[in-house]
Amino acid sequence: MGRRARAAAYRLAQLSTAQKDAILRSMAAAVRTAAPVILEANALDLTDGTGKGLSAAMLDRLRLDPTRIEAIAAGIGQVATLPDPVGQVMDAWERPNGIRIEQVRVPIGTIAIIYESRPNVTADAAVLCFKTGNATILRGGSEAIHSNRAIAAALQTGGAAAGLPDHAIQLIPTTDRESVAILAGMDRWLDLIIPRGGKGLIETVVSLARMPVIKHYDGICHLYLDAAADPAMAIALAVNSKTHKPGVCNALETLLVHRQAAPTILPPLAAALRDKGVELRGCAQTRTMLADIVPATEDDWSTEYLDLILSIKIVDGIDDAIAHINRYGSHHTDSIVTADVAAAERFLREVDSACVFHNVSTRFADGGEFGFGAEIGISTDKLHARGPMGLRELTSYQYRVRGNGQIR
Amino acid sequence: MGRRARAAAYRLAQLSTAQKDAILRSMAAAVRTAAPVILEANALDLTDGTGKGLSAAMLDRLRLDPTRIEAIAAGIGQVATLPDPVGQVMDAWERPNGIRIEQVRVPIGTIAIIYESRPNVTADAAVLCFKTGNATILRGGSEAIHSNRAIAAALQTGGAAAGLPDHAIQLIPTTDRESVAILAGMDRWLDLIIPRGGKGLIETVVSLARMPVIKHYDGICHLYLDAAADPAMAIALAVNSKTHKPGVCNALETLLVHRQAAPTILPPLAAALRDKGVELRGCAQTRTMLADIVPATEDDWSTEYLDLILSIKIVDGIDDAIAHINRYGSHHTDSIVTADVAAAERFLREVDSACVFHNVSTRFADGGEFGFGAEIGISTDKLHARGPMGLRELTSYQYRVRGNGQIR
Repeated sequence: MGRRARAAAYRLAQLSTAQKDAILRSMAAAVRTAAPVILEANALDLTDGTGKGLSAAMLDRLRLDPTRIEAIAAGIGQVATLPDPVGQVMDAWERPNGIRIEQVRVPIGTIAIIYESRPNVTADAAVLCFKTGNATILRGGSEAIHSNRAIAAALQTGGAAAGLPDHAIQLIPTTDRESVAILAGMDRWLDLIIPRGGKGLIETVVSLARMPVIKHYDGICHLYLDAAADPAMAIALAVNSKTHKPGVCNALETLLVHRQAAPTILPPLAAALRDKGVELRGCAQTRTMLADIVPATEDDWSTEYLDLILSIKIVDGIDDAIAHINRYGSHHTDSIVTADVAAAERFLREVDSACVFHNVSTRFADGGEFGFGAEIGISTDKLHARGPMGLRELTSYQYRVRGNGQIR
Repeated sequence: MGRRARAAAYRLAQLSTAQKDAILRSMAAAVRTAAPVILEANALDLTDGTGKGLSAAMLDRLRLDPTRIEAIAAGIGQVATLPDPVGQVMDAWERPNGIRIEQVRVPIGTIAIIYESRPNVTADAAVLCFKTGNATILRGGSEAIHSNRAIAAALQTGGAAAGLPDHAIQLIPTTDRESVAILAGMDRWLDLIIPRGGKGLIETVVSLARMPVIKHYDGICHLYLDAAADPAMAIALAVNSKTHKPGVCNALETLLVHRQAAPTILPPLAAALRDKGVELRGCAQTRTMLADIVPATEDDWSTEYLDLILSIKIVDGIDDAIAHINRYGSHHTDSIVTADVAAAERFLREVDSACVFHNVSTRFADGGEFGFGAEIGISTDKLHARGPMGLRELTSYQYRVRGNGQIR
């Protein structure tokens, strides 16, 4: 499969944007046509999952219905409308000896995506990699194997009808654990592995992989309410960051409040959060201001709840806030609320996170909200891609140099 | 050491360019002042090396003299004059909801450099990482341990006098193999490992590392003489690419010649190469045109000689040449000689290498020749940095987003 992916990658790299977009539209049509087949396959997965005693949340992640299939197809069609980064000249200059150097975006080559239960990842990931001229090897979770096979078959059939090279999108038909180890050792054939799933999966891939891995670890996101925070804005941003979608990586997990702002802001903020069903866990100082609050333990500061729980700490000032975030955070997304521009600029400069925000909800750390049009994930790495990853982050570059006989 | 490097990295990230450049100048002065101490330490390494029976080439790599120490100091001073990529705004845009997004270059953070015999790497690597605001942990080879300690001490002393944060540059005082394994597992404290040395070292690091590794594997570079190659230019580029400095990664290893160009070009080219002492190894067709030539075996096509040896293959055309390069090459640097612009453009587009050249010697694949001012190496990876790596490639980025209370 690796050898075939490499061969396909060379053919993919030569497709024009128009050719790729036509193939994408054909894939979208094929997914729509195959909807009954995909739903049938999904029913098998749901039956198996129920038999295995999967939780309701797991079963919901696994479940497809006509609306979700239409969303997959529409998503593919939307990727066809996005600008193609491949071929873009990133930089160009001439040297005194007359050689002209161009740095040009090219596909990465071959990418393995290892993911867990959501079958829509089969289409989302394959399609973004394809748009950027990369060949993919997909390895989905065992719970979704029938759905994944049906979706991959639709992409392959629809793609082939419009000129998709053979083996450009391959799905590993089995879901044994060994396949992850085999992929991780294929550095000759795979340029990149992207694990999409829980920490356990990422850890396994990281410890085995010989090639680059782009990791999407957790988001322990902070909102820091500075002394000069506007109370209404502080409450709105805290409530939105925490409760808009608590189960995602850009949701707020820890609130830091300046000592001077706490007496004014904390009581109404706590009331607003409790209205939304949020459990509050506070440091000793927080508990002197708010009644009936669970004590936060040391572990709380480094916990990604992904739930309606919020830890609250009162800090002495911005130094304290920055130090706390850099120590306990996951370097994902952290936001300051303040009317003090100097404090905001310090926060943006000194917090070591992929996304640093001033007076903005943490929920904006998102490829769609950034205007990327599509997102393959939010990288917690610092190399190659950091933060929301769009199409551009699925490309590499090469230097094309033109001369007229220059020697050294 | 990892924890200290991380703490130092946060302080380094806040230094201004002027502060960093003053520290660099102070380091350069300290290296000059410490020259006698460094030479004494180097004498110990040379005595040990002679005792261990190191080859003359190895001893030469190890040897420092006043000229080489001055070159190290001058190199540090030169890095102080280079533009600082940290803080550069790579991209900036506003979203319809009014949030303003900036993508800003920031240091990577903490970098381990694992290298072999050349003691000058201690200074070169540490200084480039420092200029870009990164903390380094250096782990040199056992042969150069005394020299490395003396150079690191000079950098630390000179740096400290001008405000270098503590632990910004740390040298592992021992050289046991275990230290490589320990570094490779420190993904909490190290953002990147750069192994500089032979294939064995890189392989070890790749198989152990949990964090990103930027690899500098071999350069099996090709020159393809097309049907429309100018004979004089073809000969000049082949001789320069092969003989200008045969022991480096951008030296030519395999020459591909179009069947139609071979009868005209090969005989005078072979004579010119033999004049320079190059041993030629040819495919069957080559041997029908050139007398007394060693047959090339299958292994020759994937061998990096790093020596005055050249393998030659006659190909049927550009398809054949591109397929050969993508199959046997190391995706480092490959060049076409032709007056046919369409053929050249196809070669540049279809050869999957970091550097693809038209009518230029392969020897130009070099950070200095590209105008980067300094080079940490030539990456054979496709992620983050590909090809010659300058200061820019030692940075990451973060998204700084400013709003006025936006929520989702």
